[in-house]
Amino acid sequence: MFFTSDNSSPTHPKVLEAVVRANEGYAMPYGVDPIMDEVRAQIRDIFEAPDAAVYLVATGTTANVLSLASYVQPWQTIYCHSASHIQMDECGAPEFYTGGAKLVLLDGDDAKFSAETLKAAIETTPQGFVHSVQRGAVSITNASEAGAIYAPEEVRAISNVAKAHNLPVHMDGARFANALVAAGCTPAEMTWKAGVDVLSFGGTKNGLMGVEAVVLFDPDKAWEFELRRKRGGHLFSKHRYLSAQMQAYLTDGLWLEMAKSANHAATRLSQGITAIPSASLMHPTQANAVFASWPRVGHRQVRDAGSAYYFWPHDCSLDGPDDEFLSARLVCSWSTTDKDVDQFLGLIQT
Amino acid sequence: MFFTSDNSSPTHPKVLEAVVRANEGYAMPYGVDPIMDEVRAQIRDIFEAPDAAVYLVATGTTANVLSLASYVQPWQTIYCHSASHIQMDECGAPEFYTGGAKLVLLDGDDAKFSAETLKAAIETTPQGFVHSVQRGAVSITNASEAGAIYAPEEVRAISNVAKAHNLPVHMDGARFANALVAAGCTPAEMTWKAGVDVLSFGGTKNGLMGVEAVVLFDPDKAWEFELRRKRGGHLFSKHRYLSAQMQAYLTDGLWLEMAKSANHAATRLSQGITAIPSASLMHPTQANAVFASWPRVGHRQVRDAGSAYYFWPHDCSLDGPDDEFLSARLVCSWSTTDKDVDQFLGLIQT
Amino acid sequence: MFFTSDNSSPTHPKVLEAVVRANEGYAMPYGVDPIMDEVRAQIRDIFEAPDAAVYLVATGTTANVLSLASYVQPWQTIYCHSASHIQMDECGAPEFYTGGAKLVLLDGDDAKFSAETLKAAIETTPQGFVHSVQRGAVSITNASEAGAIYAPEEVRAISNVAKAHNLPVHMDGARFANALVAAGCTPAEMTWKAGVDVLSFGGTKNGLMGVEAVVLFDPDKAWEFELRRKRGGHLFSKHRYLSAQMQAYLTDGLWLEMAKSANHAATRLSQGITAIPSASLMHPTQANAVFASWPRVGHRQVRDAGSAYYFWPHDCSLDGPDDEFLSARLVCSWSTTDKDVDQFLGLIQT
Amino acid sequence: MFFTSDNSSPTHPKVLEAVVRANEGYAMPYGVDPIMDEVRAQIRDIFEAPDAAVYLVATGTTANVLSLASYVQPWQTIYCHSASHIQMDECGAPEFYTGGAKLVLLDGDDAKFSAETLKAAIETTPQGFVHSVQRGAVSITNASEAGAIYAPEEVRAISNVAKAHNLPVHMDGARFANALVAAGCTPAEMTWKAGVDVLSFGGTKNGLMGVEAVVLFDPDKAWEFELRRKRGGHLFSKHRYLSAQMQAYLTDGLWLEMAKSANHAATRLSQGITAIPSASLMHPTQANAVFASWPRVGHRQVRDAGSAYYFWPHDCSLDGPDDEFLSARLVCSWSTTDKDVDQFLGLIQT
Repeated sequence: MFFTSDNSSPTHPKVLEAVVRANEGYAMPYGVDPIMDEVRAQIRDIFEAPDAAVYLVATGTTANVLSLASYVQPWQTIYCHSASHIQMDECGAPEFYTGGAKLVLLDGDDAKFSAETLKAAIETTPQGFVHSVQRGAVSITNASEAGAIYAPEEVRAISNVAKAHNLPVHMDGARFANALVAAGCTPAEMTWKAGVDVLSFGGTKNGLMGVEAVVLFDPDKAWEFELRRKRGGHLFSKHRYLSAQMQAYLTDGLWLEMAKSANHAATRLSQGITAIPSASLMHPTQANAVFASWPRVGHRQVRDAGSAYYFWPHDCSLDGPDDEFLSARLVCSWSTTDKDVDQFLGLIQT
Repeated sequence: MFFTSDNSSPTHPKVLEAVVRANEGYAMPYGVDPIMDEVRAQIRDIFEAPDAAVYLVATGTTANVLSLASYVQPWQTIYCHSASHIQMDECGAPEFYTGGAKLVLLDGDDAKFSAETLKAAIETTPQGFVHSVQRGAVSITNASEAGAIYAPEEVRAISNVAKAHNLPVHMDGARFANALVAAGCTPAEMTWKAGVDVLSFGGTKNGLMGVEAVVLFDPDKAWEFELRRKRGGHLFSKHRYLSAQMQAYLTDGLWLEMAKSANHAATRLSQGITAIPSASLMHPTQANAVFASWPRVGHRQVRDAGSAYYFWPHDCSLDGPDDEFLSARLVCSWSTTDKDVDQFLGLIQT
Repeated sequence: MFFTSDNSSPTHPKVLEAVVRANEGYAMPYGVDPIMDEVRAQIRDIFEAPDAAVYLVATGTTANVLSLASYVQPWQTIYCHSASHIQMDECGAPEFYTGGAKLVLLDGDDAKFSAETLKAAIETTPQGFVHSVQRGAVSITNASEAGAIYAPEEVRAISNVAKAHNLPVHMDGARFANALVAAGCTPAEMTWKAGVDVLSFGGTKNGLMGVEAVVLFDPDKAWEFELRRKRGGHLFSKHRYLSAQMQAYLTDGLWLEMAKSANHAATRLSQGITAIPSASLMHPTQANAVFASWPRVGHRQVRDAGSAYYFWPHDCSLDGPDDEFLSARLVCSWSTTDKDVDQFLGLIQT
Repeated sequence: MFFTSDNSSPTHPKVLEAVVRANEGYAMPYGVDPIMDEVRAQIRDIFEAPDAAVYLVATGTTANVLSLASYVQPWQTIYCHSASHIQMDECGAPEFYTGGAKLVLLDGDDAKFSAETLKAAIETTPQGFVHSVQRGAVSITNASEAGAIYAPEEVRAISNVAKAHNLPVHMDGARFANALVAAGCTPAEMTWKAGVDVLSFGGTKNGLMGVEAVVLFDPDKAWEFELRRKRGGHLFSKHRYLSAQMQAYLTDGLWLEMAKSANHAATRLSQGITAIPSASLMHPTQANAVFASWPRVGHRQVRDAGSAYYFWPHDCSLDGPDDEFLSARLVCSWSTTDKDVDQFLGLIQT
């Protein structure tokens, strides 16, 4: 009953086995290991993008900010949701890596913004007015911080607005696999076919030890990206261990299988909560996270039984009236079991 | 016969085993995993520094630049050797992380600088003169980029100069273990007892997959360091895998054993080269790297047999007169065998 | 009838005379000219702040961003109004100078925010949570971008909130003189007695050629400020010409006299507009700027007669129905005459 | 006898008159004043560069660093002399504005470097090696910090090396007029015809109050430059006063007349020193600065008579043996008189 985050779950055994396998003998460092050649080919194949530049880094923040910095000048904007990871959870890393770009915060339900909202924000940023920051890039998070997904046609609508203003589009796909299997489309349809220029392709939250790929669908920025990665301290000497994780992830659809498993757990949890009269959802459950509210007494019961998760917002307390409703974020991962879910559901009922 | 770098060698099996062991169940992310508590205690114990702040990152560049940025203002200097890693091999990461500090380059044999050289450089930086950059920090590399070591008394002499000017001292210890076993002193004697304020304590080049510790002997900078680490994208969610590596490294002296093994191989290689009339050393061999020169024909022979290493400087060619001398850097690691060394020696003789 | 901005007005003749006077002979550069000693004494005297550090720069943006950078770390926030100059009109200079701090935008009528709004925003920024940017400084603009003023007790209420969280307070006083004479208090009451730590003390918009003072009521940051000023390219070699302007400004109350004159013109303009049935104010007129709305036909008439001012928001057109209401910003300066005002009023009536 | 720096001299009366003239009535701010149109035309005409983008800033540091930042990426180098202003006298402003570029220091007599020295330095910077900073721009100072000049053919030789490596060339022309009249060539021959891409065209040291132009011979960087200028706080609202200074400077050859006058004074001073047996020159005198050495007793005499200048290096003392030789930098300006020079010469003789 561990729902704090998908990053608290263990690594899939097949991934660990691949790491152990990669430990044989000597290997050239800094991304020229032979496994990386295979990873590059896998990703190009999976994304139907034979020219894409592909790089590995170890954290999601890194994938996001190196991507953005490669596309945004210091005096430009990044249009993103007010609840996005780059705004809320990266301690200003986007500002650091871009040299001071300004995040323009967009609102919208379920941590998603609409094409219309984006259009209004872009048009509010004066064009060619030297006193103002200039229009930069658009960043969307899929799946969103509230567990919702953008369907390919929603991504396309947003990209159309961006392209009409000649702005690049970044997708923070820390939970890309969860979004993808929920949407039921191809990786290409969710990304470059829908106008995405650069993707943070998450692995860590979905069963890896710590690897994210960055996929630059237009390889023109490749060399700049490599320099920014090195300069940021993110180029690994013993890169083969990153390559090996990503290779295992992409082999035989393991990444999709793990995402399906996590989404399945979330759906089960969500349906169970819906069935409890005293509990209710705060956001629709579309990927692997459930946001729900139920009385404090249920929180006490489930925590006493050893469950871990975050109140959402954080600043709630188990102390207080039994019948007060408190909200929670419950994130499932590849390793969440039906038994975990059912036990949890049983304990929050009152 | 793989001598390109110690970062090309595999991870020690005990380290991998620890990683696999750490994969059990769920764990809190971002450095609050229980293994990290043990690592912190181990390092404080080993360094006889009960108050030290200890953090893990994944690359040596990161350890260096987060350390320096925590001690240097953007308008200050970093005094370092002209051949140091922070100057030559980090693509300007120190400038990036410090917000533009200026590296003042010091010369000296074997990639080491003396206390006298440092003193002259500091005194050349005007004090309190607003037009000039201001005196910042001192960074020494131990073992040096040329495979030499600073003995504790040399570190102390340098620190004395720094302290006389109220400047902090950083040690780039990417090969700290190799320097330590060569010097035959304690970790404390090599660092805080000799005036070092912050240490990049390397693991990656000495048998880990990719972990370096930063040891802040004065914990006053701890919170700032944590913010800089996060903002740089270097705070790992699944931190337990870093902790596990470092724990195994420090358990039962594995780190020292591996360093001794690497140094032993380098000594054997160095002695063998000295015994070859047509070959000569370019730097004394004190840690795990050998710098030597021998005729091109020997390079051809050993490369034909599959050996890998870098010319030093890089821009040499196997094409040319047989008897021209070409220099090479040969780095040994924990996994270098006597057989590797002896076979290599046999092949470079002419 | 030139109301585009107070920065379009000429320099007061007494100021130019002082500049000409300062041109006699040789003078030491970079702020050690003897006139600067007098300026420093004048400002300390006027602000009843004998220990204040005082510096001159040439633009308002510079005064703001050097002040903020001296008080805010790159990973911190700056709480400011969403319409503030630092957010809207400085092309990201605060982000550049602070190394990437994040502006947290507060709302409120008349481009002012309340102590309550600030308190809520501060408390929404997590304290000691490494994933989030950290609480930094508060910046208030007096007079505000909408021509309103903060009374000393309003400044105090805001500062109390800031101080309760241990945050420094900056005042953007590009139109400080206008605010001061409107409030009818002393400079000390408006600033340090009300909790302001650092003031951008404007001169350019109020009759100087181009000089702003920065007043650091706590001189602890003085040396850092000097280094930041130099490093930003803002330390003038022929500094005496800046000193001379500021000296004339402060002599015999010229600065207050000019501000009163500007405020008087704005009041006359505002009252005249109020008296026109078809015109109305968008903000109360408290300093030297008037925000008003009237039918397009009146805009056409007054522009045909040579008046200059900005639509507010900018993107309005003289083409369109006669009776559509269009808004304007009308800024008065020391040189605005009653005749200008009355002629303007006559022309916008329909 | 005031030889501390040309920036200690007064402003030329014609310049001040132009400023006073410009004070008539209202003017549009931020560089769209009509005088600026004339200045742009004047500079394009003088430099035979009809497409050049021209901007005004107020300090030499600003002109240099905005120019460099527009041409250099954060991970690139700037090749410059070790004694150059950007290295020694700008408190790290180049690093700040470029986001951390690395200055590569070249040596050479008289604060000049040769094409050969540059070539060697460029080739030492690895090409396409991700661990190293990358080749960026070349910056030459004319006249140099030691009062020497680069003839057009020397500039061309350096530019040829730069162009062969596809690198842009910046000229720090804080004393461009002094160099130009010494070289006896046209502005075009000294700059774009010799391969210079961007020029810091100094005015402040040559009779202005505080104005430098930046001339971008290739206007492609114009908009980026404008944004960087604004973001740096260097866009003046009351820009007309800068325009007026530069207009007067360029009208009827005033700038050349002032430079000739300064150079004449330096020549007279230099010849006088050469004629004194106990005095000697440290650098050839080619522009408006004289570097010379003579016994301490002569320093005492001339200082007692009220002369001001800097010891070079700075850290000398009037206390000590009479006959010890001390060096000095003596900078002449447009306002230095023959009488000043002759009186000085009479007093340093012993």
